[in-house]
Amino acid sequence: MYYHDKRLQYPVRVETPDPLFARQLQQAIGGIEGEIRVCLQYFFQAWGARGPSTKYRDMLLHTATEEIGHIEMLATAVALNLENAPLSLQESTVAANPVVNAVMGGERPRHMVEGMLQRHILSTGMAAFPANADGVPFDCSHVYASGNLAADMFANVTAESTGRVLAVRLYNAAHDPGMKDMLSFLIARDTMHQQQWLAAIEELGGARALPIPNSFDQSKEKQEFSYVFLGTDRDGVPPPEGRFTTGPSLDGKGQFSVMQNMPLGDEPVLGPAREGSGAQAEQIGKPASGG
Amino acid sequence: MYYHDKRLQYPVRVETPDPLFARQLQQAIGGIEGEIRVCLQYFFQAWGARGPSTKYRDMLLHTATEEIGHIEMLATAVALNLENAPLSLQESTVAANPVVNAVMGGERPRHMVEGMLQRHILSTGMAAFPANADGVPFDCSHVYASGNLAADMFANVTAESTGRVLAVRLYNAAHDPGMKDMLSFLIARDTMHQQQWLAAIEELGGARALPIPNSFDQSKEKQEFSYVFLGTDRDGVPPPEGRFTTGPSLDGKGQFSVMQNMPLGDEPVLGPAREGSGAQAEQIGKPASGG
Amino acid sequence: MYYHDKRLQYPVRVETPDPLFARQLQQAIGGIEGEIRVCLQYFFQAWGARGPSTKYRDMLLHTATEEIGHIEMLATAVALNLENAPLSLQESTVAANPVVNAVMGGERPRHMVEGMLQRHILSTGMAAFPANADGVPFDCSHVYASGNLAADMFANVTAESTGRVLAVRLYNAAHDPGMKDMLSFLIARDTMHQQQWLAAIEELGGARALPIPNSFDQSKEKQEFSYVFLGTDRDGVPPPEGRFTTGPSLDGKGQFSVMQNMPLGDEPVLGPAREGSGAQAEQIGKPASGG
Amino acid sequence: MYYHDKRLQYPVRVETPDPLFARQLQQAIGGIEGEIRVCLQYFFQAWGARGPSTKYRDMLLHTATEEIGHIEMLATAVALNLENAPLSLQESTVAANPVVNAVMGGERPRHMVEGMLQRHILSTGMAAFPANADGVPFDCSHVYASGNLAADMFANVTAESTGRVLAVRLYNAAHDPGMKDMLSFLIARDTMHQQQWLAAIEELGGARALPIPNSFDQSKEKQEFSYVFLGTDRDGVPPPEGRFTTGPSLDGKGQFSVMQNMPLGDEPVLGPAREGSGAQAEQIGKPASGG
Amino acid sequence: MYYHDKRLQYPVRVETPDPLFARQLQQAIGGIEGEIRVCLQYFFQAWGARGPSTKYRDMLLHTATEEIGHIEMLATAVALNLENAPLSLQESTVAANPVVNAVMGGERPRHMVEGMLQRHILSTGMAAFPANADGVPFDCSHVYASGNLAADMFANVTAESTGRVLAVRLYNAAHDPGMKDMLSFLIARDTMHQQQWLAAIEELGGARALPIPNSFDQSKEKQEFSYVFLGTDRDGVPPPEGRFTTGPSLDGKGQFSVMQNMPLGDEPVLGPAREGSGAQAEQIGKPASGG
Amino acid sequence: MYYHDKRLQYPVRVETPDPLFARQLQQAIGGIEGEIRVCLQYFFQAWGARGPSTKYRDMLLHTATEEIGHIEMLATAVALNLENAPLSLQESTVAANPVVNAVMGGERPRHMVEGMLQRHILSTGMAAFPANADGVPFDCSHVYASGNLAADMFANVTAESTGRVLAVRLYNAAHDPGMKDMLSFLIARDTMHQQQWLAAIEELGGARALPIPNSFDQSKEKQEFSYVFLGTDRDGVPPPEGRFTTGPSLDGKGQFSVMQNMPLGDEPVLGPAREGSGAQAEQIGKPASGG
Repeated sequence: MYYHDKRLQYPVRVETPDPLFARQLQQAIGGIEGEIRVCLQYFFQAWGARGPSTKYRDMLLHTATEEIGHIEMLATAVALNLENAPLSLQESTVAANPVVNAVMGGERPRHMVEGMLQRHILSTGMAAFPANADGVPFDCSHVYASGNLAADMFANVTAESTGRVLAVRLYNAAHDPGMKDMLSFLIARDTMHQQQWLAAIEELGGARALPIPNSFDQSKEKQEFSYVFLGTDRDGVPPPEGRFTTGPSLDGKGQFSVMQNMPLGDEPVLGPAREGSGAQAEQIGKPASGG
Repeated sequence: MYYHDKRLQYPVRVETPDPLFARQLQQAIGGIEGEIRVCLQYFFQAWGARGPSTKYRDMLLHTATEEIGHIEMLATAVALNLENAPLSLQESTVAANPVVNAVMGGERPRHMVEGMLQRHILSTGMAAFPANADGVPFDCSHVYASGNLAADMFANVTAESTGRVLAVRLYNAAHDPGMKDMLSFLIARDTMHQQQWLAAIEELGGARALPIPNSFDQSKEKQEFSYVFLGTDRDGVPPPEGRFTTGPSLDGKGQFSVMQNMPLGDEPVLGPAREGSGAQAEQIGKPASGG
Repeated sequence: MYYHDKRLQYPVRVETPDPLFARQLQQAIGGIEGEIRVCLQYFFQAWGARGPSTKYRDMLLHTATEEIGHIEMLATAVALNLENAPLSLQESTVAANPVVNAVMGGERPRHMVEGMLQRHILSTGMAAFPANADGVPFDCSHVYASGNLAADMFANVTAESTGRVLAVRLYNAAHDPGMKDMLSFLIARDTMHQQQWLAAIEELGGARALPIPNSFDQSKEKQEFSYVFLGTDRDGVPPPEGRFTTGPSLDGKGQFSVMQNMPLGDEPVLGPAREGSGAQAEQIGKPASGG
Repeated sequence: MYYHDKRLQYPVRVETPDPLFARQLQQAIGGIEGEIRVCLQYFFQAWGARGPSTKYRDMLLHTATEEIGHIEMLATAVALNLENAPLSLQESTVAANPVVNAVMGGERPRHMVEGMLQRHILSTGMAAFPANADGVPFDCSHVYASGNLAADMFANVTAESTGRVLAVRLYNAAHDPGMKDMLSFLIARDTMHQQQWLAAIEELGGARALPIPNSFDQSKEKQEFSYVFLGTDRDGVPPPEGRFTTGPSLDGKGQFSVMQNMPLGDEPVLGPAREGSGAQAEQIGKPASGG
Repeated sequence: MYYHDKRLQYPVRVETPDPLFARQLQQAIGGIEGEIRVCLQYFFQAWGARGPSTKYRDMLLHTATEEIGHIEMLATAVALNLENAPLSLQESTVAANPVVNAVMGGERPRHMVEGMLQRHILSTGMAAFPANADGVPFDCSHVYASGNLAADMFANVTAESTGRVLAVRLYNAAHDPGMKDMLSFLIARDTMHQQQWLAAIEELGGARALPIPNSFDQSKEKQEFSYVFLGTDRDGVPPPEGRFTTGPSLDGKGQFSVMQNMPLGDEPVLGPAREGSGAQAEQIGKPASGG
Repeated sequence: MYYHDKRLQYPVRVETPDPLFARQLQQAIGGIEGEIRVCLQYFFQAWGARGPSTKYRDMLLHTATEEIGHIEMLATAVALNLENAPLSLQESTVAANPVVNAVMGGERPRHMVEGMLQRHILSTGMAAFPANADGVPFDCSHVYASGNLAADMFANVTAESTGRVLAVRLYNAAHDPGMKDMLSFLIARDTMHQQQWLAAIEELGGARALPIPNSFDQSKEKQEFSYVFLGTDRDGVPPPEGRFTTGPSLDGKGQFSVMQNMPLGDEPVLGPAREGSGAQAEQIGKPASGG
């Protein structure tokens, strides 16, 4: 179960509110690279963790709980960036708006409205919501928790890698020193979280734990296809040479090679459509109704 | 551009069609661990690949193209498993149905209909569709292509890891020898594809390429938080010890440590709601209309 | 604007309620082939109809309004099929349930629950909801209204064709005479609606109105590709002969022919990733941070 | 920011695991009436709360934080109900499975698989995931936080009302005493949370705070339509009499009355389609291309 | 069943078309606070209404039918606001466009295109579509119809409260007198509809009908948690005092109190992963394949 | 199975990159009128094709395979239009950006960022992704493959009609000669594909094959409603006269006529809510709990 502290994990300050930056920050809240995703992902991995001990459940709970605080920081940052954003398309009422002036340099506030997420004006009353920077709501199918610990750790590395890429892009896009400061903290946490899940992978055996899942008897797979790069160039031009085309495989169980892909199966033939299945009569091989 | 061969990459045979297994196979077509996802993911990574050469674009195109053929094999397998599946809830018309008898051992075909994806009966005429095993359509937000090659490679390892976990589960669930044979091939390909993307990561520098993105100047991040595990236990009970709590970080740039999480920021205070923003009068600090 | 009559357009009777049939009927409510879709589709086409007269707006309003009544009939049929369906997994409380006995022939009510949409029990209190037979909510992206009248009429023919296919499949799956009677009415209306939209296409010029949109100057398209079937067989095996490979085109403006597809463009080369774009350093061509 | 305790808010015990009940419990996790929804809803309302004080932000944080623990309890209950559920459709391997025997009374395990969410087997390794009882992922568009405190409180009452309805249905459907015990706790919390949000509404003025938002000058609305029930019966049959057709309005600002709806506007006429807009030539009023 | 009149419920006039306002109006059509939602919500509540009489079904049908006309008015308003909106990014062709001049005051039409929903140009031919102001299609999971009349009435109050908040925001954002007039009518109807559903709640017993559902025997809930506010502040700081922390509960059945939340359950322990479940070997407690 | 050639089907050149046009092109990739849709639609129709021969499977595979190359061309065009697009909201860093200057004519780069899909900056690193022009991801429920060949052919005509409408709109919106050239090719292919599917319909019997499905015995439908236009005008004003109101039906099996719609059914009466179903006590007809 869970507790809270009213204060934020790290200070969130905005000197020059910018509603377009509020929009961009939404990606870090409700985007697939964002914090709702990692928060729920680590929680569901923890809550479903099966294994000899509760070690990984335990570890995951710490970081999942930390992530709630990151959503909170970003939601606060969005609300602060929306302070005094224009509510209207009309010029006169917003002309003297200091936010518009600071950010737009005297241009028409209408332009600022054009770049905003309309739901910041219309649906949230100038606050964050769980959607991405183009307004698409977060959808929990992105919460990856496979029941396989190693697969999940790779999913977590991925999430923190795309998450740090996003945070870096936001850092580069930001013009406010408070926002840059907040992002420099979140970027550091993403650095640690990348490390953390990779450390868990190392603990679980690293490359020796491959292929995932390592609980399947590999003698049951068609092993002649387990370490071969299949080329699909129409004229048989081989793929570029790389670590993946030659030499020992990373799990130490095979040798990489290259082969041109070719059909081993036949052209498939399905049975005709059945009477009563709603197909055209020709697909069934019967006369059309009334025909 | 692309070409096809009418034949399948690998034989697909079904001795005892089973419409519930058809349902389960849908996960490998339209599930987030499935083949549409990896196919489109590799294509979009290829089509957007930026860098000094076209090497990774080139490599990705081979494997993306291979994956179209995997969707095709699975779609064929679904259609074959749906041959002669019941069309109706009524007993009489299907009583002598050999599929029902083979799979259900003489029980009422109604039970078989209950376990089916209803859209196999109602919407596809006994064929595959791009949805998962519970009927949720595939949604292309799962196509991860971040513009960062290393992040994408980890996304690909994840996809092939959860993909192989799924294929193993399907193999274990299957009772038909043709299906087990097809899956043993797909499992082998997943083995290779896990290796392939990890090999690319090694080529790109492996742990030395961390943190992702490695193009961001780390001196700009709050480095005191870059290698520290933050514990959130209410009573300060430390997290379990592991590779992630002590010793050198995997990128060789820091030392892991543990710290109890604590608030560095204040309780946030947002400005009051603005006149005209649709809030309650109390939030604005004005009298209610007509009050 | 709109009016209602409390009575139904056509009688809806259920003699033997069947909760699995209730599930199947959901496809005709909230499936992409269902009645919410055509209702909203015809309304949005009407409300956005532009042209020299209001004729098509007018005509569309009649049929859109009729379709509300079809949703109503189906929603009523779902509720009637859920009368006395089991609320529980436990055997004892439902053992004497006449619905279970009628439909299941003395088997355990648990089986009936297994086949139901769980939300019929848990979320709706035994009533219809706007989702399909596997529980996926209807999503209004399926409301096709393109602003081009001819394209929309083809969309309508498609909707009524897949709609009648669905209604026929439901008719075949049904065992209740009241349900068969209701479906025989809906199937007849689908017959008319297919005719109606095709009649509108004929009125708009039929094949002579092609290609859609006919307001684009065809001299601006690459006309050497306008009537040629491009084959993509890897070995150049030609496509099957048909009306689409030879003879005059249907719009009377060209002759069908067949050609093997081949690349006319080059391998594309994108610029390198830019500094600050969050790519790996290698993609930018600069040293890694701290490297 | 946030803290955790490894222990659960309330005990979760399962004596007889039942994978179909695991499926039903998913509705309370990822359904629109479920706990992820209220948890995120209260958090986003808190994080965006604007007003003279931080009172409601503060209050909302307590309850939002409590709700994380409810998701945790339910996710644990799902995992416990999936212990020893069948992994396969084949009879032989699961015949002696004690779960199957306990729940199914000696019937074929295949039936149990038919009723399960297939992703419990294929995607999660027998654990919870953030989707509803029919497998549809939770979508954060259901997180209602409008920026208007009174509207949000009604949204919260609604969420806790449908939430308690759901919990009661699950209680009635359950056969396991541990599950009934857990649900009796969650039902009690829903009772409190209904009370709590209604108490906040009373604090905000109750009926006197209507209409929401109360910051809009009512003299600007067409007040002759503000307290009149519009009847749409085609033949003018009046609506049923009730509190809403006669007597003083609840906000004390008007008198309810009834009126037959009738068109006050004209038939709308849109401009013709424009040249270059992709419409058919007839909609533009020009000759077809090449015609 | 249903009838129509070609005329609108209330006049819709646009003097100065504005494509960005067309975008904002989409929120009232396809947003979760919008008219499609309430229309379908009231219809599905009506069609599934169970109870001693048809009174609420009857009442709901009137208002649902009225709401179709509201969608129609808004769709008309969107189309009128899109008259003569730019079709192109190029300056020359649109320079003399009177709409651009009226709204943009001589600036480049490109700016206007930037703020538009791109699908107004590309997909609808300058007409409304069932999506919100950021282009996300309406999804029918927002149609709340729980089978519990009181819960549904609260859902309806919520919908009309957020709906009126939205209409007020649109009124404030609008610059066109015709649009302000139309919105003043819709705002009045939202006032009535809020009243109407609250009146129904009063009729159903008001606070005495709580908790919802009132058909569950409260002695079965853990009543010691039914009226207590649980605080989750890490340091035990109590929640703010309010109507919800002390005094009689609103249903007259209890007394509010405050308690610090604390774990009553243990740390949960799930069984190990099972052989064949696709977990890592370590989770199962067996050696890795080939290890 | 499938092969590729690194070169493009047709040249893709961009002289003046324009990130807003990149956004618009997304509609042709991930919009419902776009290329991912037709590509997957033709593939799934092919893979599920049932009938006396493999002719249509074969034909569909050619065109599906061609469509992969169209997605590739458009994705390349998006990436090229994003070259040198601004990464930041700040003026100074991008002031001398040649893309901004070329497209914006010296205005502030901030305006360009406002019109962009934010995910082009934040999520893809300036590359295409499978979403539409407003950022909504493609959802595979739009892949229509009904199992009825004639219905599917009409779905394909619809897809290519709305596809060509879209391509024409993009052609008109484009200012770059390379983009106009690419689109003139795609428009020509859409012309052919419209023809191709209509030719298949002719081959399948054209109007004589109606109604779809033609395998249902029409004597089972309520034939008095099969060719009658039902008018729903409240006052009985008849629908506009047209090909659909009089004369022989297109399938030659009936005569069109017009009839005023009227209720043939009764007001429906559902059973009361059941004990234990979570309804209010009044709906069940029992006293409220503790009441």
